[in-house]
Amino acid sequence: MKRIVVVGGGAAGASAASRAKRLDPSSEVVLIEKSDMITHAPCGIPFYIEKLVEDRNDLITYTAEQFEKERGIKVYLNTEVVDIDIDKRSIEVIKRGSRDKITWDRLILAIGAEPSIPPVPGTDLDGVLTVHHPAESEYLRKKIENMRTIAVIGGGYIGIELAEALHQIGKRVLLFELMDQLLPISLDKDMASIVAEYMKSKGIELHLSEGLREIVGRRSVEKIATDKGEYVVDGVILATGVKPNNLLAKKIGLKTGVVGAVEVNEYMETSIQDIYAAGDLVEKYHKILKKKVWIPLAPTANKEGLVAGANAAKGRFLRFPGVVGTAVTKFFDLYIARTGVSEKEASENNIKVESKIIKVRTKAHYYPGGAEANIKILVEADSGKVIGAQAVGRDPVVASYIDIMAVIIERRMSIEELFFSDLGYMPATAPVWHPLVVAARVMSKGFL
Amino acid sequence: MKRIVVVGGGAAGASAASRAKRLDPSSEVVLIEKSDMITHAPCGIPFYIEKLVEDRNDLITYTAEQFEKERGIKVYLNTEVVDIDIDKRSIEVIKRGSRDKITWDRLILAIGAEPSIPPVPGTDLDGVLTVHHPAESEYLRKKIENMRTIAVIGGGYIGIELAEALHQIGKRVLLFELMDQLLPISLDKDMASIVAEYMKSKGIELHLSEGLREIVGRRSVEKIATDKGEYVVDGVILATGVKPNNLLAKKIGLKTGVVGAVEVNEYMETSIQDIYAAGDLVEKYHKILKKKVWIPLAPTANKEGLVAGANAAKGRFLRFPGVVGTAVTKFFDLYIARTGVSEKEASENNIKVESKIIKVRTKAHYYPGGAEANIKILVEADSGKVIGAQAVGRDPVVASYIDIMAVIIERRMSIEELFFSDLGYMPATAPVWHPLVVAARVMSKGFL
Repeated sequence: MKRIVVVGGGAAGASAASRAKRLDPSSEVVLIEKSDMITHAPCGIPFYIEKLVEDRNDLITYTAEQFEKERGIKVYLNTEVVDIDIDKRSIEVIKRGSRDKITWDRLILAIGAEPSIPPVPGTDLDGVLTVHHPAESEYLRKKIENMRTIAVIGGGYIGIELAEALHQIGKRVLLFELMDQLLPISLDKDMASIVAEYMKSKGIELHLSEGLREIVGRRSVEKIATDKGEYVVDGVILATGVKPNNLLAKKIGLKTGVVGAVEVNEYMETSIQDIYAAGDLVEKYHKILKKKVWIPLAPTANKEGLVAGANAAKGRFLRFPGVVGTAVTKFFDLYIARTGVSEKEASENNIKVESKIIKVRTKAHYYPGGAEANIKILVEADSGKVIGAQAVGRDPVVASYIDIMAVIIERRMSIEELFFSDLGYMPATAPVWHPLVVAARVMSKGFL
Repeated sequence: MKRIVVVGGGAAGASAASRAKRLDPSSEVVLIEKSDMITHAPCGIPFYIEKLVEDRNDLITYTAEQFEKERGIKVYLNTEVVDIDIDKRSIEVIKRGSRDKITWDRLILAIGAEPSIPPVPGTDLDGVLTVHHPAESEYLRKKIENMRTIAVIGGGYIGIELAEALHQIGKRVLLFELMDQLLPISLDKDMASIVAEYMKSKGIELHLSEGLREIVGRRSVEKIATDKGEYVVDGVILATGVKPNNLLAKKIGLKTGVVGAVEVNEYMETSIQDIYAAGDLVEKYHKILKKKVWIPLAPTANKEGLVAGANAAKGRFLRFPGVVGTAVTKFFDLYIARTGVSEKEASENNIKVESKIIKVRTKAHYYPGGAEANIKILVEADSGKVIGAQAVGRDPVVASYIDIMAVIIERRMSIEELFFSDLGYMPATAPVWHPLVVAARVMSKGFL
């Protein structure tokens, strides 16, 4: 009987294990998870902090019991993989202090990413927190409870979602971002400035272009020092990005690429036979940039896990074709989404682009409840193809604009093809000239 | 100087006039409109009746003055075109009783559609209303004011939107539909039944498979007789569909096709040299069915108008590539959308399809405010391509699902390609497995 061992019970791992067992019910599928929960949703942590989600167990989709009983997958919780023996095809695990070995015929690594800790003094002080795993969310909530003033370090997705959450539960929030804009990896500065303005209007103390130098305190955080000043705070949340959790992979000699993420091909095969990898641990192929990137997001992890699981079970059964860089977040009621290539990415990759920001309303002008939204469209100058889009607005529909654009961009459609897309209309859902159609008109330079 | 005369100031006509003048500023552009308003939005009438929109003037985007002053387009309001002389290139108009002639070098007909009146006795009684033009909306609102019980005849878009509106302003509403389902032209019966159930739960008295036989009354409506019974009502709204307003077109010998809509090519040229037509008056090419259809909707009208205007000004400058059948409506907070080919249309066109209805939630399971939605996906059995989608759910995002599907379908994408689309995720906007990705999995028969 074939044994498929999956390491990591998050999005990619749970998806891989389920798919492998489903496609090859005769195989033994083992899922190994370091924490006490599987199918956990780290994206939900800010909402748990905000108390929009009451119970941390709501942040999981399935329990280990369900996986065992309903899916026939053996789950080891609280179990850490400390070594992998390639020749003997076995892994060494530690479970509550005791060591054990498990052999495998196919191994799927889905051990994700971990917070990047900035190399400054004081990050080990009490009151310095990271947001990483739902298993820690209860601890996180408790720690935050007694803090009044909190410095959030980093203005990426996690940083801005936490800033909202902390503000909503009554904390004074200072947000520090080293770059001169929020969401520096996702948005261009012009679009990010809309988010920054809104953040300030909500009473968050936003400090752009300001780098953390030190966290100061005897045992617990008392203040922070940046390259511009000192701030008395009760706690610090480090939201300074993530990195692939690649120690184990490196130890066994798996090839790694972009920022140390594990190299995989479209079958999610690593450089070592019969070892697959999926999720935040691995590189992704960017369909528009036509190169490997590292964009660690849950939907990709789920699909990669599914592909890895399918192929571990059935051989080269399914391919993961890659991503186009879609991502969504929100700050209060301001929805923020992007796909394709930003102006910054275009410039880094020597792609000449033309772009504009278009202001639209999300509903017919006479229909109550519409909001203003800003849409930025990027067109490749040489080909005339749409290659990027960003949207910011106080209506969740902007996330959908970006979903539409993700397909438009992936299909390499032109501005004219976008314009003539048969997008729907009714006064309560869109203006009669759909915002994306308007954007296409504006980008057409008078042609449309 | 070239004179471009546009007949009809609605979506298509206003769009055509604007585009023509913009592309050829040296030409004289004349816009002729029968009512006292241009750029009017008939789709907004139900919301005006519902009093979500207070002023009927909110239903227009531009005034005639704005068109004249800002765009340099001559506008004749309250002016009806009664004849067209092809040889002399002139039209005969009546304005407040007096006749006049206007010559043209290019003529664009955009006179839209008109309500289909069922051939039963009593449709001329006082209290029998149709919903057609914003210019009549004030009259409509006034007439409805004193009615307590109203029969809406027809369960299409206008019928269900009006049923909501009338219910919301305190009327007792009976809705009669000849077919055995609501929205018979747009939705398959299985999806329409969700709308019917919701309608009944709102207290609308829904009568399916029931045809109007007669409207009875001395001077004004007293009751209606159907093929199943009699009902005492104070008013009747005929929402029994629309037909192309093709009398003038036929009179001058323009070729017509599907249901009498004017034939046009992709340049919006009619069968007579230098006469263009656009909007609800004309046939549309259906990209998936690969044939002419008649789907009279405002976004199509706008784009066709733009194409007609561009070509009237510049020759064969722009092509209208056709539609895929996207349409959206809502009933209270239940959003209803569709695109591509329905099961019914597939069967009428001898296309073998496979389909399923998938129940999804619109947000992460733990995030507050998500709703249940039903998505129906249709796949062409021979090619494996997605060819249709319908969605019904209490979240406006279902309209966006259909926009995404409109692009997926137009690009002839397969279920696997839909599955691997890089659709965005955050708990407040979608579950981590996007509903459309889930639908693709279900349709893949175990492959994904």
